Amino acid sequence: MYRIGIDLGGTNIKAGIVGEGQNILREKFVPTLAHRPAEEVIIDMAKLVLSILEEESLGIRDVAGIGIGCPGMIDAKSGEVPYSNNLCWENVPLAPLLKKSLRAECPIKISNDANCAALGEAKAGAAKGVSNVVLFTLGTGVGGGVIVDGRIFEGAHAGGAELGHTTLIMGGEECTCGRKGCVEAYASATALIRDARRAAGKEPGSLMNALCGGDLDRMNGKIPFDAMEQGDKTAKALVERYFDYLAESVANFVNLFRPDVVLLSGGICNQGRNLTDPLNERLGRLCFGGKKAFVPEIRCATLGNLAGIIGAANLV
Amino acid sequence: MYRIGIDLGGTNIKAGIVGEGQNILREKFVPTLAHRPAEEVIIDMAKLVLSILEEESLGIRDVAGIGIGCPGMIDAKSGEVPYSNNLCWENVPLAPLLKKSLRAECPIKISNDANCAALGEAKAGAAKGVSNVVLFTLGTGVGGGVIVDGRIFEGAHAGGAELGHTTLIMGGEECTCGRKGCVEAYASATALIRDARRAAGKEPGSLMNALCGGDLDRMNGKIPFDAMEQGDKTAKALVERYFDYLAESVANFVNLFRPDVVLLSGGICNQGRNLTDPLNERLGRLCFGGKKAFVPEIRCATLGNLAGIIGAANLV
Repeated sequence: MYRIGIDLGGTNIKAGIVGEGQNILREKFVPTLAHRPAEEVIIDMAKLVLSILEEESLGIRDVAGIGIGCPGMIDAKSGEVPYSNNLCWENVPLAPLLKKSLRAECPIKISNDANCAALGEAKAGAAKGVSNVVLFTLGTGVGGGVIVDGRIFEGAHAGGAELGHTTLIMGGEECTCGRKGCVEAYASATALIRDARRAAGKEPGSLMNALCGGDLDRMNGKIPFDAMEQGDKTAKALVERYFDYLAESVANFVNLFRPDVVLLSGGICNQGRNLTDPLNERLGRLCFGGKKAFVPEIRCATLGNLAGIIGAANLV
Repeated sequence: MYRIGIDLGGTNIKAGIVGEGQNILREKFVPTLAHRPAEEVIIDMAKLVLSILEEESLGIRDVAGIGIGCPGMIDAKSGEVPYSNNLCWENVPLAPLLKKSLRAECPIKISNDANCAALGEAKAGAAKGVSNVVLFTLGTGVGGGVIVDGRIFEGAHAGGAELGHTTLIMGGEECTCGRKGCVEAYASATALIRDARRAAGKEPGSLMNALCGGDLDRMNGKIPFDAMEQGDKTAKALVERYFDYLAESVANFVNLFRPDVVLLSGGICNQGRNLTDPLNERLGRLCFGGKKAFVPEIRCATLGNLAGIIGAANLV
């Protein structure tokens, strides 16, 4: 039997057939066109699933289960999406509607997209075979996935495991959630870019200005690292401060979940050990209990976009 | 059959016989005298257990299991205490030594004392019958207990569920754990007293000065509330700020665990609804997802010192 994993994003719907060895037999995507009514998006999800099955000469009866990773607040028990900012959805009964549209008899389960990415990495990626994992997705925001004893931990009600929405500096930078000073407001790629613009704007001699062609609107998350590598002190101070934010955030979740491994994902992971080495060094000093306690290693995720599909398939 | 719950503290060892209805048949305490070798403390624990059993005409064979709540870092799997600051212990095999000392054949389990208090309140106290609970103990430090699906959640390794050791204001007030800006450094009774001393010291006209007889060393956690009630503006600003710290801390853990109920314990709970009403009002504004998500109620714990004994008994 095969499982289907669907990674529903604000931009694309990706779906894959996942084999028993966590291998992806076939995957495909179509644009989400999120501003349509939810029903139309869900019909396209069903068509996409049927299309990849057909290409493998399979039918819906060959499918043991379907999992969906979805951005926003998820009610895993009912299969509904109370609220998703990226999809402009409110109270959408996602799993029931897809089940109806596919005339599927197999179980259909949903979870938050970052949870699915964490589960995918724990099943087949950078934390393969590891039972307790915390994953941070560092992108526009900071998403989080927590795996406890091999299963997604998402709290008793929708809106748990929101790692990005806990305070790093109470009353600090404005966060997208309406609070001030959340982890997301300091540790996301968006926050790094904001801080790089500010730093470069204050220091006209910083190489970061040249690297974005004198136009701070062209700042991205790679430029501070490139400038640091070329000896720019402003960039170095900025990146070191960003590492501090990240390490303090990770230490908070180690003190709560004390996982076997911590994973980071997102474009910044292209920095590899230039990112993880300084973070691991800091983490050892920050965690409760110091050297008397187990301090997990911080690693970069390895599955990229496939983590979501594999994780979603593992919901069922 | 009966269960034994032991609340091992830096000052006293308390033990109780717990019946099937979560009733305490008998309880008793002896001083811990923590600076002795751990073996001697454990022998006194065994004597205390045998003594309360004898007073009920019971023997160790009538006991289905023994649970121990212990301050510090606990390894629940091995029954060992890697580190406890309050007991001056390092790597003490607590459960195995007590088992040997009692010649007990029943299971003996250990957990962190705040975890046990949370479990006790969830079984017989302010959250009776509730499956998902987060409890904060606001005392010298900030302890935390997390109950998920009716069981203690303590992370995959010793040193998890340390709610007090997550950042509220990174780089802020010094914390006992070595970091700066932890929840404990703002939301503990100790932190409230520190801030009250500072505020009263800066504002000689504040009633808080008179209420501690002009000697700021006599400041306690009740004086700011008393002064506020009598119209003192300095005290009101201080208490409102303390509520902000507490509410932001609670919101962080709601965004992670999204429990059914949040409990507070410690002397400050004598304030009752003067404490919980302003916190619940703030919490609604701070949690991720706002009104679209479930926001748990903040309540005061009700079992007092018995929570630890009842919770410990429920480990087995």
